[in-house]
Amino acid sequence: MDKEKIAVGLWLFGKLSDRFMVYHGSRTLEEKMKEASKLKQIQGLEVMYPVDFKDEEIDKFKGLLESYNLKVASVIVDHFCDPKWMHGSFTSSDRKIREDAIQLTKRAMDVSKQLECPRINLWLGQDGYDYPFQADYKVSWDWLAEGIKACAEYQPEVKVALEYKIKEPRTHIFIATVGKALLLANAVNLKNVGVTLDTGHALYCGENPSESLILLDRCGKLFHLHLNDNYREWDHDMIVGSVNFWDYLELFFWLKKIKYEGWFSLDVYPYREDVVSACQQSIENMRTLMGLVDKLGVERLATLVQERDATKTAEVLRGIFK
Amino acid sequence: MDKEKIAVGLWLFGKLSDRFMVYHGSRTLEEKMKEASKLKQIQGLEVMYPVDFKDEEIDKFKGLLESYNLKVASVIVDHFCDPKWMHGSFTSSDRKIREDAIQLTKRAMDVSKQLECPRINLWLGQDGYDYPFQADYKVSWDWLAEGIKACAEYQPEVKVALEYKIKEPRTHIFIATVGKALLLANAVNLKNVGVTLDTGHALYCGENPSESLILLDRCGKLFHLHLNDNYREWDHDMIVGSVNFWDYLELFFWLKKIKYEGWFSLDVYPYREDVVSACQQSIENMRTLMGLVDKLGVERLATLVQERDATKTAEVLRGIFK
Amino acid sequence: MDKEKIAVGLWLFGKLSDRFMVYHGSRTLEEKMKEASKLKQIQGLEVMYPVDFKDEEIDKFKGLLESYNLKVASVIVDHFCDPKWMHGSFTSSDRKIREDAIQLTKRAMDVSKQLECPRINLWLGQDGYDYPFQADYKVSWDWLAEGIKACAEYQPEVKVALEYKIKEPRTHIFIATVGKALLLANAVNLKNVGVTLDTGHALYCGENPSESLILLDRCGKLFHLHLNDNYREWDHDMIVGSVNFWDYLELFFWLKKIKYEGWFSLDVYPYREDVVSACQQSIENMRTLMGLVDKLGVERLATLVQERDATKTAEVLRGIFK
Amino acid sequence: MDKEKIAVGLWLFGKLSDRFMVYHGSRTLEEKMKEASKLKQIQGLEVMYPVDFKDEEIDKFKGLLESYNLKVASVIVDHFCDPKWMHGSFTSSDRKIREDAIQLTKRAMDVSKQLECPRINLWLGQDGYDYPFQADYKVSWDWLAEGIKACAEYQPEVKVALEYKIKEPRTHIFIATVGKALLLANAVNLKNVGVTLDTGHALYCGENPSESLILLDRCGKLFHLHLNDNYREWDHDMIVGSVNFWDYLELFFWLKKIKYEGWFSLDVYPYREDVVSACQQSIENMRTLMGLVDKLGVERLATLVQERDATKTAEVLRGIFK
Repeated sequence: MDKEKIAVGLWLFGKLSDRFMVYHGSRTLEEKMKEASKLKQIQGLEVMYPVDFKDEEIDKFKGLLESYNLKVASVIVDHFCDPKWMHGSFTSSDRKIREDAIQLTKRAMDVSKQLECPRINLWLGQDGYDYPFQADYKVSWDWLAEGIKACAEYQPEVKVALEYKIKEPRTHIFIATVGKALLLANAVNLKNVGVTLDTGHALYCGENPSESLILLDRCGKLFHLHLNDNYREWDHDMIVGSVNFWDYLELFFWLKKIKYEGWFSLDVYPYREDVVSACQQSIENMRTLMGLVDKLGVERLATLVQERDATKTAEVLRGIFK
Repeated sequence: MDKEKIAVGLWLFGKLSDRFMVYHGSRTLEEKMKEASKLKQIQGLEVMYPVDFKDEEIDKFKGLLESYNLKVASVIVDHFCDPKWMHGSFTSSDRKIREDAIQLTKRAMDVSKQLECPRINLWLGQDGYDYPFQADYKVSWDWLAEGIKACAEYQPEVKVALEYKIKEPRTHIFIATVGKALLLANAVNLKNVGVTLDTGHALYCGENPSESLILLDRCGKLFHLHLNDNYREWDHDMIVGSVNFWDYLELFFWLKKIKYEGWFSLDVYPYREDVVSACQQSIENMRTLMGLVDKLGVERLATLVQERDATKTAEVLRGIFK
Repeated sequence: MDKEKIAVGLWLFGKLSDRFMVYHGSRTLEEKMKEASKLKQIQGLEVMYPVDFKDEEIDKFKGLLESYNLKVASVIVDHFCDPKWMHGSFTSSDRKIREDAIQLTKRAMDVSKQLECPRINLWLGQDGYDYPFQADYKVSWDWLAEGIKACAEYQPEVKVALEYKIKEPRTHIFIATVGKALLLANAVNLKNVGVTLDTGHALYCGENPSESLILLDRCGKLFHLHLNDNYREWDHDMIVGSVNFWDYLELFFWLKKIKYEGWFSLDVYPYREDVVSACQQSIENMRTLMGLVDKLGVERLATLVQERDATKTAEVLRGIFK
Repeated sequence: MDKEKIAVGLWLFGKLSDRFMVYHGSRTLEEKMKEASKLKQIQGLEVMYPVDFKDEEIDKFKGLLESYNLKVASVIVDHFCDPKWMHGSFTSSDRKIREDAIQLTKRAMDVSKQLECPRINLWLGQDGYDYPFQADYKVSWDWLAEGIKACAEYQPEVKVALEYKIKEPRTHIFIATVGKALLLANAVNLKNVGVTLDTGHALYCGENPSESLILLDRCGKLFHLHLNDNYREWDHDMIVGSVNFWDYLELFFWLKKIKYEGWFSLDVYPYREDVVSACQQSIENMRTLMGLVDKLGVERLATLVQERDATKTAEVLRGIFK
């Protein structure tokens, strides 16, 4: 796994809370960097802008990156933490808010270039609706397409990766599934607009992450990868592979099959765990899964996929324990 | 509602079963037609070919349609009842089966024209997978696109409506969600390839049927509409509006808003109910919902949608009881 | 509905947040009381102790209650907001924490008496587990039964209502379903130990709230009632009846049938709505539903229940629109 | 695993169908026995009475059991396949049907004794409801308790194991969850009334099978065990351990911890697979899982459970690959 590039979300080392309590307290940029650097075998960080660092901290951040020998894997633009986005960003009914959303995204693309990171991540988690009769679906989809296009055209050399998620914090988010994300990316029709696959998001909207991966790859739109785990019914953001095992084994098989060369970016949220340990265990689980794919052999697994016989597959898969 | 065209699936009046027992026994074509004709206010039938009638019964069927003054709303091609499709039709690993699937579809398009019905419905329920490592997702999506394209080009004046469903009878069906269905229709890129919205299928894959409707309409791909109800977790095919009320009120609002002129086709499956009664009650529920939309007023509802205030909307919606 | 006693959670008027942002800011006790008092037709408050008020504020709180002419419907003991409970309260692996949980509960029972409220509510939301191999299920259930017994015996005249919920904030909560809650209450075997039915919690663990209500009533364990709504898959705590309509109509029928005389306590969580409005609309929806039950007639509905014919029931239920 | 007693459902070797097609055709008793006997390492059969054999076939069946050296693990009474039970058995509104249900159960207890099997399994899958306002919950629970009591008292030396399942074929089944099953067993209050844990049923109603197991064991009510797998959202009855891995590893740990000495009974439903192979692979997966528990060590795992640290647990669990 020496070649695989592992990244981790920097925000994980700051405040972690839910509606009931704060599980981990806030930390400064320096403190978060220090925590992240305790991880073995990471090469990069994913950062939220301007949550993890402010504009005036960019130079300091670059210095810290250099001193820890870390790259930026992706810049996530904050359209979901600042209360101004409470009722939506790109699809807010307030024109000023929509313009701000686009403006912030463009600014993030500039920042991304400064950080020598070729990619921003757009997760529009507040853009959706909660109740019946609460959204003009047509106009919203128009605004999404137009806004994203405007951003992508601003900096064609920065990739815009759309991260889909079916719900939370809204009961319904517009960019919900791999199908909708691809539909939107295709509608925008620009080379630098693609999709982030978050394996947990795929699992809990009923997708098999492997199928979503291949669908994205087939369309040339696999721009980024987030990893975490859950019980297929909510975005629990647990240690990678701690709940689902075969799904992840299959995913790592397909990643190898398509010769994926992008980042493996950890997006866990360890409410009650030591954060460094939860990330480290996710990394170890990923290493192990990659090793098991090698043990079974990509070609052998590819043959099983062609044969489609679940009983024969079960027989072969148990080979990982031998 | 005088203008709305209501149809009902003819197969509902035949054998209804599950893996445990047979709830309603088989009936001949004549008997099924007679049962269907007991329904008040229907103008059409949706039929499964060649399940509801065989090739040699087409003239007889046309005579029955005429005598009961009914039209054919849509011809569903059987890619899911004949055991030959057990492991898939358009995506079978067996080339011969794939060719048969295309051949049957073309034949159904011919039949469709004979029946003066401008639409076939493709629900590829056996095309998917059950286990991890059981599908070559890339090739499957290629075959879907190629096969559907071949069919659609064969009879450009017959519409091909793709019906999506996330699971059952497979644990994972390829054409799973509105996003994937639209993605596939767009990939085929032919005017006569679009999508069937089944409201129950939308509900149980986490979609709001209204959003799916508008998304399809926005892309010019709303080709057909199936109605039924469930608890948002399985395709129970219950009486329309018997479980979900506000979702259906919203749906009928949007249908009126976009001036939908297609069929309202009942796809219920009344395991333990009198089938004619279950269909009739679905029709009465739909009539009532359409009446309530008129009572509240399309423009007033459209204003609520713009305002996005769930509390104001609640206030107005209670107007249906006044 | 003049006789029905409506209460609302006082905490709703304070800080409302999720892991992404703060939607409504904190308020003082006086401010929260003032907000709550804007609601028409409420007779009571449900309060979290010691979150909504501290020990030293009890007299002030009593004064405020008197001045607003409000009663306390139930005292919820905080075993889920203070970070000390992060890993559980009654089932913490730390004996000291377990003792504190019991101590706090006893203290809350004293407070409850001071407030002339005959009931505390125990929602042990942090008592559960997230990962496989993370709980000693046997010992945990022993501790739950012993701890609750110790509390209940301390003040036999104060009712202890156990509120069940299947998940959030843990991925698995011990007191998960109506069956488990009743099992535990029966195991403790004390007259003053029963169950709180939260309609939203019932809906999203796959229960029909009406069945749960009757099951509790049948066992003499229906101690309290929380109301809110959701999409049957998560505790969204939405406006009562805004998503599910027939379930609530049925619930209000059964409440009338069993002559329920307890509180109807609002436990909504209006992230993005004006909180007073969201509560008021919940109350209006409840009033409307109660009125519709009267319009249809309890005896007529009871007859439908005996006949079990969903098609006849549909026919009668549409009477609410006539 | 030499001591473990593996059984398999005999009906699996007969007709397997869903509402769309027949996947495997019918077989005679002799043919089913022959198929079952192809399995390596099974000691028993679970049979449906009177589906797998008729009263007049009992001697023949006993002969076949002897010749194949197989025991009967459990007799499942058919209250779900005969169309007479369509609207319920123990809770039918028809007194005659309710009496027939009890009569059949008593007869099955006699048969069970003749087959030297100390246990019947009651899965009341048709006893529930589909629509709102369709059940008198109170009376239904009364009838369940009374009927089961009458049966259990008839033959005190035959164990009556209640198998819970939340839905299918009804949208709501009364005996839905481990909590409700235990509640009912406790209400009947007879030594020979307990519960069957079906791991798939537990998984798809949101339970962790291990917790359900321990809850049953703690109450002395763990009477029987069914194994199969699914995606936590429906009773897909897949190969054991083919979807969920860690849940099953944990389950086999707890089974060893409590020194379970009952049957491990396969209740899979291989729609599209070779049935013998699907069962054999389930057995091999179980053997493997038991071996992995031994490899990690029961005491070591028990220590992890006490420590509750998911990151430390992840570290140790990866030991299975070393």
